[in-house]
Amino acid sequence: MNRPVHGGNLAWAAQLATCSPDELLDLSASISPLGPPVSVERAMQAAFSYVAAYPDPAYVDLREAIASHHSIPSDYVLAGNGAAELLTWAARDLADLSGPTFQLVPGFSDYARALSAFGGELCPVSLQSAEGWQFEGWEDNLSTAVPLSCCGFLLNNPHNPTGAIFSKRQVRSLLSKFALVVVDEAFMDFLPPEREQSVLEWVSEFDNLVVIRSLTKFYSMPGIRLGYAIAQPKTLERWQSWRDAWTVNTFAAAAGVAALQDIAFQQKTWRWLSTENDFLFQGLSDLPDLNPLPSCANFFLVKTQCSATALQECLLQQQQIYIRDCISFAELGDRYFRVAVKSRTANQRLLQALADVLPTLAEV
Amino acid sequence: MNRPVHGGNLAWAAQLATCSPDELLDLSASISPLGPPVSVERAMQAAFSYVAAYPDPAYVDLREAIASHHSIPSDYVLAGNGAAELLTWAARDLADLSGPTFQLVPGFSDYARALSAFGGELCPVSLQSAEGWQFEGWEDNLSTAVPLSCCGFLLNNPHNPTGAIFSKRQVRSLLSKFALVVVDEAFMDFLPPEREQSVLEWVSEFDNLVVIRSLTKFYSMPGIRLGYAIAQPKTLERWQSWRDAWTVNTFAAAAGVAALQDIAFQQKTWRWLSTENDFLFQGLSDLPDLNPLPSCANFFLVKTQCSATALQECLLQQQQIYIRDCISFAELGDRYFRVAVKSRTANQRLLQALADVLPTLAEV
Repeated sequence: MNRPVHGGNLAWAAQLATCSPDELLDLSASISPLGPPVSVERAMQAAFSYVAAYPDPAYVDLREAIASHHSIPSDYVLAGNGAAELLTWAARDLADLSGPTFQLVPGFSDYARALSAFGGELCPVSLQSAEGWQFEGWEDNLSTAVPLSCCGFLLNNPHNPTGAIFSKRQVRSLLSKFALVVVDEAFMDFLPPEREQSVLEWVSEFDNLVVIRSLTKFYSMPGIRLGYAIAQPKTLERWQSWRDAWTVNTFAAAAGVAALQDIAFQQKTWRWLSTENDFLFQGLSDLPDLNPLPSCANFFLVKTQCSATALQECLLQQQQIYIRDCISFAELGDRYFRVAVKSRTANQRLLQALADVLPTLAEV
Repeated sequence: MNRPVHGGNLAWAAQLATCSPDELLDLSASISPLGPPVSVERAMQAAFSYVAAYPDPAYVDLREAIASHHSIPSDYVLAGNGAAELLTWAARDLADLSGPTFQLVPGFSDYARALSAFGGELCPVSLQSAEGWQFEGWEDNLSTAVPLSCCGFLLNNPHNPTGAIFSKRQVRSLLSKFALVVVDEAFMDFLPPEREQSVLEWVSEFDNLVVIRSLTKFYSMPGIRLGYAIAQPKTLERWQSWRDAWTVNTFAAAAGVAALQDIAFQQKTWRWLSTENDFLFQGLSDLPDLNPLPSCANFFLVKTQCSATALQECLLQQQQIYIRDCISFAELGDRYFRVAVKSRTANQRLLQALADVLPTLAEV
């Protein structure tokens, strides 16, 4: 099997670890350890009765649950077969612009895949300079051969793989310059209300704004495939004309309604992450050869002195722990890895494994 | 709510029938009454344990089950979020041809939607002439302004909505003329091995052939969304580059593996359909104002003397029976309806309801 492009490829990892996928401690995919919520499991069990019928092509219940959760009208909502499906259609709109689409690098590799699928061109904006990481100010220094008003911006906020959060002010600056701004807020749920920087309530004001959200990371159900886009109805109607009528299956639609109504699960997740984000950041920082970046999300990007792919293989083979190498982020290469924040026990197991394994890996 | 374009829109129908969707006898969507198989329900129950992990992006188990079922190599298989998703990508290939894509009319309206999504042009081939329905010979009389070798053909076999089956010889004739032939075999499973006319074993010989299959109709699980394409690997790799990595969710992947291995369910379905297809055809033919077309599949197209939409509304309001009007098939208009073949009890209920209701509808 080839080295996977994305995290979460348990079949590949289990083969290297010579164990079953169930036995791995998977830190490669940034999925919450708390879910799926019991409410979601119950809703999916109930959905068994509806398997023999087509889903409602208007997905009224699901779209109303999303709309209600965000206090927006339901015609500003389009559900999809994972955020990834909706990114495909967003990329088609971006590729139709006469200018290129800007993207922060390092960045999620699927953006480039989606854009190139429709002949779009990517214009990278580096978050790294000679002085190190720069998470502010990049939005003021953007230029290309054509006016920015002919270009798109595909922003990931919070940002994967760094875990940085950009302020609403930074996004507003993009909206005033670019023809189309797509904000992938797949990890925004992980920030508690007082810290989140979502711009989804701006969609009624800005017809050049699309926000994409995922329901699979926060609610621990990536197997379900469920995401949604928030944008003005004319954008969403165009996307709907490009795809078939039933892109969300019955289980996913039921799971989404239940998840968004589970306030207790949401609050529990914020409490867990607040504590464990601090714990894991401190633990990683305390290890001599590692430098984690501060993160507002449920993962950390960590700089290493040794080869990150060698570390990944070593952790798989000796500890059945699966971390994410960053080879698919071309700008990072082999000196960074990414790990998800999990339970206290799992975080401790990772820290102990790193302490055991790192001294055995030569600095190259 | 607007009149739906497709069958199976239970929310719309239940509103007209003033009952709950569960109380309807739904004959509008051509779904087998026998499933989902117990084996599929068990597999989906077991899949609950995997919801918190991403699906295997290579879908090795599912693709091997499909490949094994058809005795083809697994790199000739691509699974999708329903056959409808795969038709979207097939339509993109068809739209990229310099000539138009031929389609039999009447035909499934989603073909036009998918083609126009990528700027493709449709060239209709009528199955009706002054002498009535013509299911043979149309393949010998095809022409347009550009050579057929620049054109595509999108064939539905068995054909929806008529239930006609075209011979492999007819398909081979298309393959020798057209740049690309896409055969949607969504209902082919319903024919027993001795009668089926699938061309999927030809994909290794013809690089201009794509076959699309559905797993939701035969196994009664349209809520699941699961289909697959059979074509040469270079075609499927191109499609995969256009879409995201995880288009089939965990439940659907598990359901597919179990379904294809359930030989007993397949044989039971063929026995049921052989009997009930004959019974319902005879019963419909015996009603004075109805003319069903002979069908090899699990549905009938029926010509009426009265308005089919009036009949549909009347059956909904008085009998909670939901038949499919054919308004979305422009060539049929308001003088045809389509009904699915169901259990003996349901088929009898339909026939009795028609006998009761038809005399009350004026011939216009």
